[in-house]
Amino acid sequence: QLDSRGRCKCQGAGAKAIRPNRIERLEVLPPSLACPNLEIIVTLKDNGGQKCLDPNSSFSKNYIKRAIKKRSTQ
Amino acid sequence: QLDSRGRCKCQGAGAKAIRPNRIERLEVLPPSLACPNLEIIVTLKDNGGQKCLDPNSSFSKNYIKRAIKKRSTQ
Repeated sequence: QLDSRGRCKCQGAGAKAIRPNRIERLEVLPPSLACPNLEIIVTLKDNGGQKCLDPNSSFSKNYIKRAIKKRSTQ
Repeated sequence: QLDSRGRCKCQGAGAKAIRPNRIERLEVLPPSLACPNLEIIVTLKDNGGQKCLDPNSSFSKNYIKRAIKKRSTQ
């Protein structure tokens, strides 16, 4: 159990949400041999570093859908 | 399909769907000064390279949600 957690990139549940205009890139890593968890890693603008996002939050679940909607109303 | 010349990484609409078990990593790039389009780039397992995904496809819109659901039933 500890072994597999060591290869995961996120520890703990991660942030429930991140202000969308701070997001430069969002990466989804499906469960794999390296890590049994679905992980979502956000790279922040202006060298703000990286943050883990809680995949179970509604922000995560709806991020792509919302990003498209926002785009089509601009 | 990946556009190496322009500042956008994807040319054309991209794939409507990709078999989920082939996906090693999925990256979402929101619209930015570099590229006005929302782009979704999938890295395939086993050195399968990268592919652009159509952000407007229902596969893209529901990917995170579905990946979580799948995980919780395993």
